[in-house]
Amino acid sequence: MSIFEEIESNVRSYCRSFPDTFSSAKGSFVYATSGKQYIDFFTGAGALNYGHNHEHMKRRIIEYLESDGIVHSLDMYTVAKEQFLQTFRSKILDKGDYPYKVQFCGPTGTNAVEAAIKLARKVTKRVGVFAFTGSFHGMSLGSLSVTSNHYHRQAAGIPLSHVTFIPYPGDTYNIDSIDYIEKVLQDDHSGVDKPAAIIVETIQAEGGINVAPIEWLQALNEICKKHEILLICDDVQVGCGRTGSFLSFEDAGIVPDLVILSKSISGYGLPMALLLINERYDIWTPGEHNGTFRGNQLAIVAATAGLELWSSSQFQKEVGWKSSLIKTILERYISSIELNIEIRGKGMIWGIDFSGIHAKEKANEIRDKCFSNGLIVECVGRQDTVVKILPALTIEPEILRQGLEILVDSIAVALKQATVT
Amino acid sequence: MSIFEEIESNVRSYCRSFPDTFSSAKGSFVYATSGKQYIDFFTGAGALNYGHNHEHMKRRIIEYLESDGIVHSLDMYTVAKEQFLQTFRSKILDKGDYPYKVQFCGPTGTNAVEAAIKLARKVTKRVGVFAFTGSFHGMSLGSLSVTSNHYHRQAAGIPLSHVTFIPYPGDTYNIDSIDYIEKVLQDDHSGVDKPAAIIVETIQAEGGINVAPIEWLQALNEICKKHEILLICDDVQVGCGRTGSFLSFEDAGIVPDLVILSKSISGYGLPMALLLINERYDIWTPGEHNGTFRGNQLAIVAATAGLELWSSSQFQKEVGWKSSLIKTILERYISSIELNIEIRGKGMIWGIDFSGIHAKEKANEIRDKCFSNGLIVECVGRQDTVVKILPALTIEPEILRQGLEILVDSIAVALKQATVT
Amino acid sequence: MSIFEEIESNVRSYCRSFPDTFSSAKGSFVYATSGKQYIDFFTGAGALNYGHNHEHMKRRIIEYLESDGIVHSLDMYTVAKEQFLQTFRSKILDKGDYPYKVQFCGPTGTNAVEAAIKLARKVTKRVGVFAFTGSFHGMSLGSLSVTSNHYHRQAAGIPLSHVTFIPYPGDTYNIDSIDYIEKVLQDDHSGVDKPAAIIVETIQAEGGINVAPIEWLQALNEICKKHEILLICDDVQVGCGRTGSFLSFEDAGIVPDLVILSKSISGYGLPMALLLINERYDIWTPGEHNGTFRGNQLAIVAATAGLELWSSSQFQKEVGWKSSLIKTILERYISSIELNIEIRGKGMIWGIDFSGIHAKEKANEIRDKCFSNGLIVECVGRQDTVVKILPALTIEPEILRQGLEILVDSIAVALKQATVT
Amino acid sequence: MSIFEEIESNVRSYCRSFPDTFSSAKGSFVYATSGKQYIDFFTGAGALNYGHNHEHMKRRIIEYLESDGIVHSLDMYTVAKEQFLQTFRSKILDKGDYPYKVQFCGPTGTNAVEAAIKLARKVTKRVGVFAFTGSFHGMSLGSLSVTSNHYHRQAAGIPLSHVTFIPYPGDTYNIDSIDYIEKVLQDDHSGVDKPAAIIVETIQAEGGINVAPIEWLQALNEICKKHEILLICDDVQVGCGRTGSFLSFEDAGIVPDLVILSKSISGYGLPMALLLINERYDIWTPGEHNGTFRGNQLAIVAATAGLELWSSSQFQKEVGWKSSLIKTILERYISSIELNIEIRGKGMIWGIDFSGIHAKEKANEIRDKCFSNGLIVECVGRQDTVVKILPALTIEPEILRQGLEILVDSIAVALKQATVT
Repeated sequence: MSIFEEIESNVRSYCRSFPDTFSSAKGSFVYATSGKQYIDFFTGAGALNYGHNHEHMKRRIIEYLESDGIVHSLDMYTVAKEQFLQTFRSKILDKGDYPYKVQFCGPTGTNAVEAAIKLARKVTKRVGVFAFTGSFHGMSLGSLSVTSNHYHRQAAGIPLSHVTFIPYPGDTYNIDSIDYIEKVLQDDHSGVDKPAAIIVETIQAEGGINVAPIEWLQALNEICKKHEILLICDDVQVGCGRTGSFLSFEDAGIVPDLVILSKSISGYGLPMALLLINERYDIWTPGEHNGTFRGNQLAIVAATAGLELWSSSQFQKEVGWKSSLIKTILERYISSIELNIEIRGKGMIWGIDFSGIHAKEKANEIRDKCFSNGLIVECVGRQDTVVKILPALTIEPEILRQGLEILVDSIAVALKQATVT
Repeated sequence: MSIFEEIESNVRSYCRSFPDTFSSAKGSFVYATSGKQYIDFFTGAGALNYGHNHEHMKRRIIEYLESDGIVHSLDMYTVAKEQFLQTFRSKILDKGDYPYKVQFCGPTGTNAVEAAIKLARKVTKRVGVFAFTGSFHGMSLGSLSVTSNHYHRQAAGIPLSHVTFIPYPGDTYNIDSIDYIEKVLQDDHSGVDKPAAIIVETIQAEGGINVAPIEWLQALNEICKKHEILLICDDVQVGCGRTGSFLSFEDAGIVPDLVILSKSISGYGLPMALLLINERYDIWTPGEHNGTFRGNQLAIVAATAGLELWSSSQFQKEVGWKSSLIKTILERYISSIELNIEIRGKGMIWGIDFSGIHAKEKANEIRDKCFSNGLIVECVGRQDTVVKILPALTIEPEILRQGLEILVDSIAVALKQATVT
Repeated sequence: MSIFEEIESNVRSYCRSFPDTFSSAKGSFVYATSGKQYIDFFTGAGALNYGHNHEHMKRRIIEYLESDGIVHSLDMYTVAKEQFLQTFRSKILDKGDYPYKVQFCGPTGTNAVEAAIKLARKVTKRVGVFAFTGSFHGMSLGSLSVTSNHYHRQAAGIPLSHVTFIPYPGDTYNIDSIDYIEKVLQDDHSGVDKPAAIIVETIQAEGGINVAPIEWLQALNEICKKHEILLICDDVQVGCGRTGSFLSFEDAGIVPDLVILSKSISGYGLPMALLLINERYDIWTPGEHNGTFRGNQLAIVAATAGLELWSSSQFQKEVGWKSSLIKTILERYISSIELNIEIRGKGMIWGIDFSGIHAKEKANEIRDKCFSNGLIVECVGRQDTVVKILPALTIEPEILRQGLEILVDSIAVALKQATVT
Repeated sequence: MSIFEEIESNVRSYCRSFPDTFSSAKGSFVYATSGKQYIDFFTGAGALNYGHNHEHMKRRIIEYLESDGIVHSLDMYTVAKEQFLQTFRSKILDKGDYPYKVQFCGPTGTNAVEAAIKLARKVTKRVGVFAFTGSFHGMSLGSLSVTSNHYHRQAAGIPLSHVTFIPYPGDTYNIDSIDYIEKVLQDDHSGVDKPAAIIVETIQAEGGINVAPIEWLQALNEICKKHEILLICDDVQVGCGRTGSFLSFEDAGIVPDLVILSKSISGYGLPMALLLINERYDIWTPGEHNGTFRGNQLAIVAATAGLELWSSSQFQKEVGWKSSLIKTILERYISSIELNIEIRGKGMIWGIDFSGIHAKEKANEIRDKCFSNGLIVECVGRQDTVVKILPALTIEPEILRQGLEILVDSIAVALKQATVT
């Protein structure tokens, strides 16, 4: 028995899907003690948009450490935070003319979700939140209550309250969710009070790579404005450039009232989480939401370096180009299989959905085959039937092709004899 | 207006008490852009037991970075985690014969508190939790519900449920809380159901440096065992050596069912949080509680280095010696003032309680004077009336004396004309 | 100022719509101190299916009182209860081969709703309840949580939890609610746990005389059976013969697991409420739900007499005949008006819905005109736009015609110049 | 098997303790089909203060019925209600100069408790309620949440929230509850928010005949006034003359903000419940809390007759005299037994507490023996160890003596060989 099996809690999870012990990593490669190397199409569930241990960021982090830059300082003012805020303002806020103030939350996405929900309740003096089927927002009690997944919800051990779930576009419900929300709000016998907020992912990643149409996001935004409901965009997994723009809702032309960034905001895999707050709603009093690690300086230093990488127009052009490459390869391949397999995605997040074929469990088999063949991909969505493709934004085209090849081969082997459900 | 005032949320807090911009730090000193340097008796609210940027840890972190050790890997197996677990077992678990398994939680204390409460509910199939007056456990919804502070509770925006508060030893309630709990549990008309867990801090830090007597902890442990209630020890602020032993309950000879470690577990200020679970209660299923940054490898590397520092018997001896020094100096000084000022503490956490004098707000004045004079101390407790002294365990005796001198001088100035309430 | 205005609480309500002081009543007439008499198309919101002070029942009640029959005895065994149970079994249960046991609840509909929800949770060990938009189930906390009306919900003063609202057939939502429920239950990312129960009115009376189609009730029943969810039928207002059969779901051929009867179960206006429990779910332990007035013997005596009236085939034939009469007159009249006015109903409960015309508030105006003209009718539904017609089942055809004439005339006057919205 | 066993729900309860079938009743006697007659020291759990079928009230009820007085009219104005309100004002409100307005609630105590809690939340815009250990307030969800009894609480099937339980005077907790409440309210780290209301019984009847000292009630009243918390007195069981004054708190000289009356307010066993509201808090909007049977005219007619009986000074004098008689006989007898048996009570409600002796279950044995010997008494309190003595206020002294004799004899037989615990 390994030390992990001996004393790490049974809650450990990804280690079961990817049974090797990892030692180092660089760019899109991960190296294991078994001697194997893996192409990484998982990238820390979205935390590694710049790949592993990017040299530019690494140098900055090491320089900061070597110079004894202050590493821990809660929410005091620091030089590192000053530089980050200036960079974030010039590279992100000013560019989109966004009216956001920045809250440094405890360095987990779920902590920023908790902050957003609390603030929305404080602003509106209402209690309820609307969330969507397929949503994933985190594991602490407030975030869990807006997370749709039954497996995680039951772990709360108490009934989760104050949340109404609305069908997400494309889900099996065949309901026009905008129309439904409007009617719920207008009907004086709907049983559902006007909520403090609606929390949405523009693309549901854990939920199965479900992409909300731009028009739908715009309509959702409209309905929130009309009824003075705060719109919270949880951009934890698909923000920070993943969809081709830094904030995933840019092409919808909307300005959610609250935006949550985490995962790739530091970009080096260092814990960090931000809540962007429309300045008109920044009614927090000092320390009303706090946390020891809300000023993780090393992550902040990395984040500044990451923003520099992102802001290069060359970088963004390449992301666009690679997005097309993935889309093209996947579509060509999937259309060649005569089965009810759907591909969905945007920018550099894609999913292959096997729920429409007889053998749904094939998705897990494919993941395992990929791993054997040197590629890390995760399964997400209802009953884990969607293979998620999430390469680093920085991946070299050649490696991207190699990874997709392994994927396609693994699918081919797994699908022999599969039929449509 | 600074960039902070312009775009950082109004929630920012410590920056208001300590108005300078910090650039670097080393050991017990923090350096600001103003040119000033400060002795640090605050140490990241307990996250910096080894002081700022300790060389031994720093070298390890930089080596790891330079070698491209994997920085982010969720809860996969890694070499860094393997080394940490082996070190933690040999240096901590084996030494105390503790039956704990280790859960790597999202890297905030509050996340591990959430995990503990969820697990206790799952194990017992009960809902309620008993917490204590004066408690502080965190800002996410589950943790907030067991936090006693009204200021933070009201920020939830919803009623906080499923928790019963019991008077903590030494609080003004004059209630024998053990007897009270026993009666609540035995009385079939108490209105309070048997809880899943009792969550306790052995020393309430944010609550005002309230120290639970050893016998009380033992009795609390007994009552939990008798009624099959899980005892959760939140050792976030006073664990990791702060009280003179690594786990704060060692001298009570008890083994809480669940123990939360965070803040100084990495020791370098890098975000990390652990839940120790008595192996008999490790009934999690895979991924039932998860989080992107639950495997913050850099923090794990630092944590291993930190455990090496801690395990030196010389280190522990010096902590003991410095504890006595603080106690002696404070007691001598406070007894020289003829006012109703109480000092409380243990190991290297101490509080000076000004709530008994007419001018309670003196505590904040003292903090401000200290800061002007080059010392960082925080106020905690009811109405912020307790000055908290929390130096690094590694502080040089000379610096410790200097800091205490600044403190004593600041008190003296502030207290002119103060009288007993 | 009257004594009512002086010392009766502002909560008083119907007295504002019907401003007269009533002294006596007989059959379908109510007499006031003003000297006026009114035809009653309101009948105690459904509590007076046999009209006011029916002689057969009255004689029984007075005989019982004169003989000093025991009037109050909680849930002890009494002769009066024995006779009721025998009559209820032979006249109702045996006739429909219903497997129900009878619980005498506190004598309010809301109390029996509370009992039903508690029992459903106990049976299933689940927490949630599905209720419908437009529903009304009562004012105590449990019943209020399944009541859809915002005006009443906000009066709770706390967030109402554990309930999911589903669109009722015919509501504006354009959602196939059966399909929606099925998908919510099958989707592992729906965010909504399988409920303990679904609570439904076969006709929503307070909600606006919304009639659920028989096929829909059958499908709802199916889905409950399939997923082992308890089906609760709240038959408080439309049970006891109102729809033409004693239990309103008889023609759907379904057997809800729990059925709530109140209002006209005693039939004389005396407080009484029953919960019918499928015997397989009668897992109550003694006194687990109780209440001082759960054995209101006078009401029980009246109820036995009422069942005797009901069981006459002549009685039921006449109800059928009068149902047709109402329908015919209303349809003829409404179709003569060229406005978007809908009539809905079944048996002897009908609604005229003015929500589709420009001047929705006309409904209240019509109610007031009717009252001036000697007819009592109530407004219900969204924004009070539906005039509810609820005559006694025993009403003489001539009086029924007279009442409908007053109604038609009042509508005609009110609708001058009204146009479609 | 009887019809009861066949089709009445298992929830039936008192019929198990008193296994006979009752047919008629008069004054303090109940008659059964077995041919036996019983002296009634249970009186409908307090609903029959004027005994069974009191002639004065009976004549009024029958007259009303014979004259076809309106029996059901929801909350419209009626002649019967007018007469009641005038009588209630002159006989009760004016006499004590009470500033109450009267709300006619659904005719169960629990319904009025629900109304009181809702109104307190509406008035204060707060959520929490303080209730007491040993309390009983009803079975609907809101009332159940303030009921202390675990057996009843678990039947909710959901966690009961928003309530804090405080030790009632005399309970085993040895806590000065007034001091405790004061400290909870003052301590900014108590974890307990200022409540909307404190709900109290001046004597806990179901809880075991626990009598709150007058000074304690006064202090409780003070603390509520000071902190602007509404004081709710649940006078359901011990109001309406039971303690010697009409409202049980008269001798304390306090004016609770909300008072709940039910059980003996009609006095004939007919369902009725009132909420008395300090006029300054009567901020209900029309129909905000409602219910079909809130105007049970027959009960209102009886209530007016009952108030006439009560207001005779002779009546009240006799109550005083019989109170002393019970006290004297019980004290003499109990002091003659050398066991740790406590008697508690006031006016005409008394309890004999057997919890201090080895064989606690003796209480039930005594109840059974009494029943065999022709006396109905109930057991209440923790583990049912208190025999409750609750004769009609109208009981003839001779019958009272006879009943007490049966009781004393039954105790004597049961206690042979009993010893102190």
